[in-house]
Order: sequence, then structure tokens, then C-alpha cells
Amino acid sequence: MIDSEPAAPRSRRAVTRSDVARYAGVSDAVVSYVLNAGSKPVAAATRERVLNAVAALSYRPNAAARALSRGATDIVGMIVPDSRNPYFAELVHAVDRATQARGLTLLVINSDNRRDAGTDHISSLASRQLDGLIVAETLTTAEHAIVSSLAIPVVLINQFQGAGDVPSIGVDYYLGARTAVDHLIGHGHSRIAFIGGEPGVDRRERGWADALSAADLPLGPRYRVDFSLAGGYRAALELVDDARASTAVFVASDQLAIGALAALHERGRLIPEQIAVVAFDGSAESAYAWPPLTTVAQPMEGMAQEAVRRLLGDTTAPAFAAFPTSLIVRRSCGCE
Amino acid sequence: MIDSEPAAPRSRRAVTRSDVARYAGVSDAVVSYVLNAGSKPVAAATRERVLNAVAALSYRPNAAARALSRGATDIVGMIVPDSRNPYFAELVHAVDRATQARGLTLLVINSDNRRDAGTDHISSLASRQLDGLIVAETLTTAEHAIVSSLAIPVVLINQFQGAGDVPSIGVDYYLGARTAVDHLIGHGHSRIAFIGGEPGVDRRERGWADALSAADLPLGPRYRVDFSLAGGYRAALELVDDARASTAVFVASDQLAIGALAALHERGRLIPEQIAVVAFDGSAESAYAWPPLTTVAQPMEGMAQEAVRRLLGDTTAPAFAAFPTSLIVRRSCGCE
Repeated sequence: MIDSEPAAPRSRRAVTRSDVARYAGVSDAVVSYVLNAGSKPVAAATRERVLNAVAALSYRPNAAARALSRGATDIVGMIVPDSRNPYFAELVHAVDRATQARGLTLLVINSDNRRDAGTDHISSLASRQLDGLIVAETLTTAEHAIVSSLAIPVVLINQFQGAGDVPSIGVDYYLGARTAVDHLIGHGHSRIAFIGGEPGVDRRERGWADALSAADLPLGPRYRVDFSLAGGYRAALELVDDARASTAVFVASDQLAIGALAALHERGRLIPEQIAVVAFDGSAESAYAWPPLTTVAQPMEGMAQEAVRRLLGDTTAPAFAAFPTSLIVRRSCGCE
Repeated sequence: MIDSEPAAPRSRRAVTRSDVARYAGVSDAVVSYVLNAGSKPVAAATRERVLNAVAALSYRPNAAARALSRGATDIVGMIVPDSRNPYFAELVHAVDRATQARGLTLLVINSDNRRDAGTDHISSLASRQLDGLIVAETLTTAEHAIVSSLAIPVVLINQFQGAGDVPSIGVDYYLGARTAVDHLIGHGHSRIAFIGGEPGVDRRERGWADALSAADLPLGPRYRVDFSLAGGYRAALELVDDARASTAVFVASDQLAIGALAALHERGRLIPEQIAVVAFDGSAESAYAWPPLTTVAQPMEGMAQEAVRRLLGDTTAPAFAAFPTSLIVRRSCGCE
């Protein structure tokens, strides 16, 4: 249970390792050997007796440790749109570390293959004895209704805006985008394009546009694609063929930018000499792209830790928290 | 299929729930209550008899049948070492599609943050009403023991070799590696290096060595690192500084190769003119690297579907299946 109250004593007292040992007719030490597998060999038959005892008594080996972690049981679910996107892969990794640090186990569900099934994946998850749920996607109204009705704590992450009183975490996409475009302007560019998703709640496109306006520069072309390697690749091919001849581009994700770099290389464009690039996310992949990507980094660790804090209820933060981003400067923008 | 031999009929016919009930001296319904934990309470002694019967008869509950009888979506767990590796991200995606097609929901757990916790992550998962488990990592002996003792169907994927009678799926790493190195030899290279992990059960290094021997070529240098972007980067820096001056390299994963490309670019090496590269995995990222990577592709979809077939018990395939790989030819090897 993730709740400030102590766990209700479900049955008179917690099952201990000694109970298991007695039930199985072995010593406490043998129970340890079996459960901390590898510490000592145990005969197959004995091992089976111990495992049966564990099952029969519903013994939870970590009970003591978990009692310390404020009555929390163990499993938190996390819904991500597509873990093939390196940004989500890293966010999952960060949340995994944060849950692990609090004695929780994280189970991840990808929703990309499930969206046509409506809200089934959420209901299905929630019916499965989860102790909390972290959702890293933009919810539809129906999904939001389901999430709000769950009897377990829910935290939204990777959010563009607040969602009523459901605790939500995001970054300041608008300011992050402005910083990126200001940086390109600082390099002397005046024809700066945008590659990103469809306009909607995502404020990166607006940040790009406002940075240009504020510098009295004309709006460059925008290429709106789906967030994928292929989307970035297609957008950059369009950009190369576009008579409006941009000399720089702000790309709304690292994954899109990596796809775009492939297209720019293929068309023989020199980066950053002929086209400068600034991306968004700050995933590890951005450092190993060629050239290494200048990118607006999201504070993954900080957001992940905050998500878990909110799930556990030990924070007084407002419902929606927008974390600040930071610009990681590498070669793709023209620095170095 | 993957292997020419038909499976030995393990026992005349599949063990059914009724067999378990008869053996344990209980009704079919009680077997269901025990195996679908939480549906109804069962006395400890009865529960133990049922679990003993399950173990004695090697009964594997059929997830699909249970989904139908319960009218609920069944949940399959999947353990992966690190979902930040694009190969695993794609394997998860493929398994997710395969489970979805069979009306199952997939929950993923990353083990990279959990290995020091021993086998807790597996036990913890297994205690959570999962209906099946797919494990995509090389198991320690202790983990293998836990996995074998579970009362739910288990399938191993991403395996280098069989694991007793636990259904296991892998690719032919040895032949895949030989094909890659033969391709580089075909381009006229005679000083071909290897970048990969520590030697052990992974047969890619042996495939590389044997391909060179078979062509009467000297063994090139080998750079052994951890499977990560940073590992590939470090290995390629070593390669560039190495007096043995390789003109080509076979890299054991796409992720390592992408890290290696960054180092080669940084040191001003032309790819493939000064150093040709062939990688392994066939992830989407390999197509968007610069230059696009020639790579030994694993049949992700096929392996994922086979894993789910085996989990559901509707296959007569042998315990270990090694899928064939295929070489995807792009620019990094010198083709085009």
C-alpha cells in the first residue's frame, strides 16, 4: 500500500522466515539458502519443500525491508507510449532506479500497440494488484477518466500541462525551445526551421516561433511528422529540397534529430557548416550521434525521483511541476 | 522451423488441470483457485498438495485457456537486461505485438538495476499473478533454479544455448558472425578486428575467428567491452590507436557499433574507406546511423511470435531453437 497510513495487519502477524522453516521442516538457514539462491547449494527435494512452504504461507522474503519503506508493498506500473524512443527508454531507466531506491519494483507497459484497444490496457493493469501507476503519455479524455477513478496513487510524467488534481510532471518545453533557438540565433542564423510533431498542447513550436519573433526574424518553415526516426528522416529530406533554404533547424526530439542527421548526410549536407541542428531531450544517443547533438536536456533523474516521491505522497509540491531544462552544447550547432 | 528434428514427444499427451486435480485429490476448481491466486482462498495444506501435483506432473497452465475461462486479459511478464539497448527495446516491442495478437498484455521489468538484489526481481514478479514469463537475459544458476520452479509457463529468449528443458530461443550467433566476417573478407580486407563482450557462451567471437582461419588470415585484435554506447566508443578509440592497424571491424551489436562510429568520426577516420564496419542485431537505429550500418539481422518478429507460441504451449518445437540470421547490406561495409 502506498499511503501515509501504516499497512493494515492483513492477518494477525507477518509470516516470518522461521514460519517457513517450520512448515517445511528445515532450518532457518536452509530457507535463506533457497531464497538467496546461489549462496549455498540445496538438494532439489528440500528446495521444493521450501518453495512450497513459501507459496503455502504467502511468505514475502522482503517483509522486514518493506516495513521500513513505510508500508509500501512492491509493484508500481508505468505506461509509456513507445520504449523504442531512446527518451522513453531512459526515462524508464531513471524511474526504475528511483523505484528501486525506495524498495519498489517497476513494471512497464508499452501502450503504442494498445491504443486501438481504448482504455483496456490501463484497466487491465490497474486490476492487477498494482500499488501505484506512473503514466508517461498524453492521455485522452477517456483514459484520463479511467486514471482518475483508480483506487491506487497515480502520477503523470512527460506532461505538457497539468491534469486537474492528478499529480503531473513535465519540463518547461516552451522555455527549452526558446533557449535552443536563441542559441542558433546567437550563431548568426536567420533562417531557422522547425521539425516536430503536430501542433497541440506541445509548446516547443511556440517557443521556436516566439524566439524568432523576439529577434525580428521571419518564421522559418515547419515540418510536422510523427515522433520517430523515419519521421525525422523524411522531414530533413523535405527541408533539403525546400526552396526556403534554411541554414539551421530546431528539432523537437533527439530521436527525430538522429533520423534527420541521416537524411542530411545522405544528401551531402555538412553539419553544422551548411545546416546547424539543435535537438531536444538529452538522451545518451544524442552524445553518440554524428556530429554529437547540441540538445535541450530534460532532467530525467530529477523528474523520476519526483514522480516516485509524489506516488508515495511525501511531497507538498503543486499538482503540476514543470522542471527547467538545460542546454547541452556539442558540435551540431556550430560550437567547438 | 528452425531445427530439422521434430520434438521428441515428451509425454504422450499434455498434462491437464484434471490430471493435477486427480493426483492431488481435489476438484478441478480447487486447482484453478490455487493457480489463479487470489480468486478464492484455499487451505494451506490443500494448496501444498496442488503445488506438489503441479511439480510432480510438470503441469504447465495454459494461459490462453485460462484467459478464456476467466474472461480477463492474461498478463505475461518479460525480463530484459536493459531496455535502453535498442535491440532489447525492439525485442520488447515485437513481443508486445505478439502477445497483443493473442489477447495477452505484456509487462516488462528491467533487471539491470536489480542484479545485485539477486533473484528478488524474478520471485517478486512471479508472486504477482503473472500468467507467463519471458526472460530475455542470460540467467545465473540461481536465477535458473528460480525460473524452473515457477508454477507458470516460462520461455527464455535472446539465448546463446539451451537451458535444460526450459523452452529457449536464440539466433545462430556463430553463423551470423561468420557471415559478417566473410562479407568483409569478400571486400578484400585481411586485417579484421573484433569488438564485443567478454568471451563466454556468446559464440560471435568464435565465428569471427573461424571465418579468418578458414580464409588463412591472421587473427585481428579483439577489444572486449561492456555492451553499451560508451563501450563501443572506447573500443574504437583503442582500435584507432592500435599499431596493428585494422582496416575492418566486426562489432557484436548495433549499439556498440553506433558508439564505435562516433569515435571513428571523432578521429577523422573515413568509413568505410579507412575502416569498414559490420554490426550485429538489425535494429532500426542501424539504418539511421552514419554511414548506415551493414548488420547481421535477428528475426525479431519471428522470435517473438515463437516465444508466445511456446508460452501458450501450442508448439511441438524442440526445447532450444536457434533462428537463422540474415545480412542487411548498407554502406558501412563498403557496399554501394
